[in-house]
Amino acid sequence: MSATRQRRVLGIVQNARAKPARFRDERITTAHGAGGKASQSLIEGLLLPVLANDSLAALGDAGAVSAAGVELALTSDSFVVTPLRFPGGSIGELAVNGTVNDLAVSGARPLALTLSLVLEEGLAAVELRAEIEAVARAAKAAGVQVVAGDTKVVSRGDADQMYVCTTGLGVLDSRARLSPSALTPGDRVLVSGPIGEHGMAVMLARGEYLLEADISSDTCSLWPVAEALIGAVGEQLRCMRDPTRGGVASALNELARASGVGVLVRERAVPISAPVAAASELLGLDPMYVANEGRLLAFVAPAAAADALAALRARPGCGLACEIGEVLAEPAGMVLVETAFGGRRVMDLLAGDPLPRIC
Amino acid sequence: MSATRQRRVLGIVQNARAKPARFRDERITTAHGAGGKASQSLIEGLLLPVLANDSLAALGDAGAVSAAGVELALTSDSFVVTPLRFPGGSIGELAVNGTVNDLAVSGARPLALTLSLVLEEGLAAVELRAEIEAVARAAKAAGVQVVAGDTKVVSRGDADQMYVCTTGLGVLDSRARLSPSALTPGDRVLVSGPIGEHGMAVMLARGEYLLEADISSDTCSLWPVAEALIGAVGEQLRCMRDPTRGGVASALNELARASGVGVLVRERAVPISAPVAAASELLGLDPMYVANEGRLLAFVAPAAAADALAALRARPGCGLACEIGEVLAEPAGMVLVETAFGGRRVMDLLAGDPLPRIC
Repeated sequence: MSATRQRRVLGIVQNARAKPARFRDERITTAHGAGGKASQSLIEGLLLPVLANDSLAALGDAGAVSAAGVELALTSDSFVVTPLRFPGGSIGELAVNGTVNDLAVSGARPLALTLSLVLEEGLAAVELRAEIEAVARAAKAAGVQVVAGDTKVVSRGDADQMYVCTTGLGVLDSRARLSPSALTPGDRVLVSGPIGEHGMAVMLARGEYLLEADISSDTCSLWPVAEALIGAVGEQLRCMRDPTRGGVASALNELARASGVGVLVRERAVPISAPVAAASELLGLDPMYVANEGRLLAFVAPAAAADALAALRARPGCGLACEIGEVLAEPAGMVLVETAFGGRRVMDLLAGDPLPRIC
Repeated sequence: MSATRQRRVLGIVQNARAKPARFRDERITTAHGAGGKASQSLIEGLLLPVLANDSLAALGDAGAVSAAGVELALTSDSFVVTPLRFPGGSIGELAVNGTVNDLAVSGARPLALTLSLVLEEGLAAVELRAEIEAVARAAKAAGVQVVAGDTKVVSRGDADQMYVCTTGLGVLDSRARLSPSALTPGDRVLVSGPIGEHGMAVMLARGEYLLEADISSDTCSLWPVAEALIGAVGEQLRCMRDPTRGGVASALNELARASGVGVLVRERAVPISAPVAAASELLGLDPMYVANEGRLLAFVAPAAAADALAALRARPGCGLACEIGEVLAEPAGMVLVETAFGGRRVMDLLAGDPLPRIC
């Protein structure tokens, strides 16, 4: 299609997409929790209009709260991953790191966590103890304390072993000026390491596929990485995101939409390990949509991209950090992929949920 | 039994009880979520030792966090009440008020909430919408905003309709000096209104008993009541508690234990509505153990008790506030009830869970 025609077609799509999604479904499906289109319609069509306030409408990974002049970030996540344990981690580590990372990518130093458990009657005490120990270990590694908690027990069959809700409180780093709506044409898109490892590790741990691969979850605290970036480029850092549910593709779509810009990703530049690439191909999954729990995406002003990349690569575990694309003026609200063959296609939000209960 | 003999026997009991409870169970039972002895053993025997830190060990209703010189309180609760709606409220209101009240009784003005949902696939959208609207309504009434949220969906049968986890952030009122370990012999025990209404309303709403009664949940925000008390008596206010799961009896036991004092309750002085008293008798439940969601217990230095009671009674909905007992030097860690007939008996934590999923 010609560039003009492409712009015109995408312009129409964009106008259709700029409106908040409506929520018209009669019943909740797993797709509403998958981070794709159905999640978007639930959030934009029901939750935001009913709970309307500025902090929530900003749709960051954490809400901003000002307390007696101190700028804080508050974020909450429920974890329902199955199985409870998988190569590289478990629900306890995930519950800490997932919440710590929502603070980190919001530019907030993690300060304290709360831990709220919903346990299924009959859960083995050793399983619970192992997960509380995992929480303690991950919290120590992330430099946060669990300061409050709650435990509820429901009857056998009213939950699947255990669900964990963690909430994180952080203090915003005054050097950072981050916002999901700050993406500017020309900005470079960086990723801190190979993608798709967490989701693929959990999928394979379920044993539903006759496939074994040396893939471990990347779950870890991203605050040291986020802080290194903030320290290196300060206000030139526009936004960070940890691409969890729905993967890199969904995170980029959310930000493109929030900033009213286009994002171009160069497929060939995206780091993917050989086992993840192979497993993705065998299972027919696009790793761009597979969850990560220890990677961040950073959007940086072009002049600062080299410094940001150097700061990333200097962090342990981020040696494979890459620039994977850039921000375009249009198509506004959309993500394009430049394929290995040089063509471009739209990388949209998914409609369904190919990987349920991944976090 | 003679007073000396009673002291001696209770002294032995007390020594046995002063040690942290051990957790020896092989599997989780509903009793571990009921707020009684099994909950205590889970908290003291597993959660606290593994997650050890000072803020958590203080066992307040909220954890204390200091951020750049501002003293904050953070608290989290999961709500699994069944049915979702009951006379006087629903899970949405409960999730807001329950968390706001944990801040309030910690002496913290509620500032912001997070809302994390675990939804069962198949949940009707109208049910979800009704509960989000209830959250919004209760948050507005309590003067807080929901600043962040999360939604997970699990397959049909892996949850019971919906579970809601709310976390609250508050700023500690500098006039208050509250602590669960501050109870001092001579302190007066006040309650802000009739007890047992929430738990009884939920039980009857289940329709398991062929019993109808005009009982509504007391769910509401307690911050205005807590603030009035703090304003009226300041540092003379030792501690507040909202007696939710396990009711007044469990809250008093926790505080007696935390402060190493005894608490005497005069049964005749405890306000109970006629329908709650009648339903309790018919169902064989002691209203002292039935959950409240809009009442607070306050422990006040004796010289300030009259002012505190006057401040309470001046608040809407607290016209029936009463002094119901006092703090004793011993039996340390125990609660005694002076019955209507003038005798005294121990009012211990319950071992089991007579009222599962009440909040």
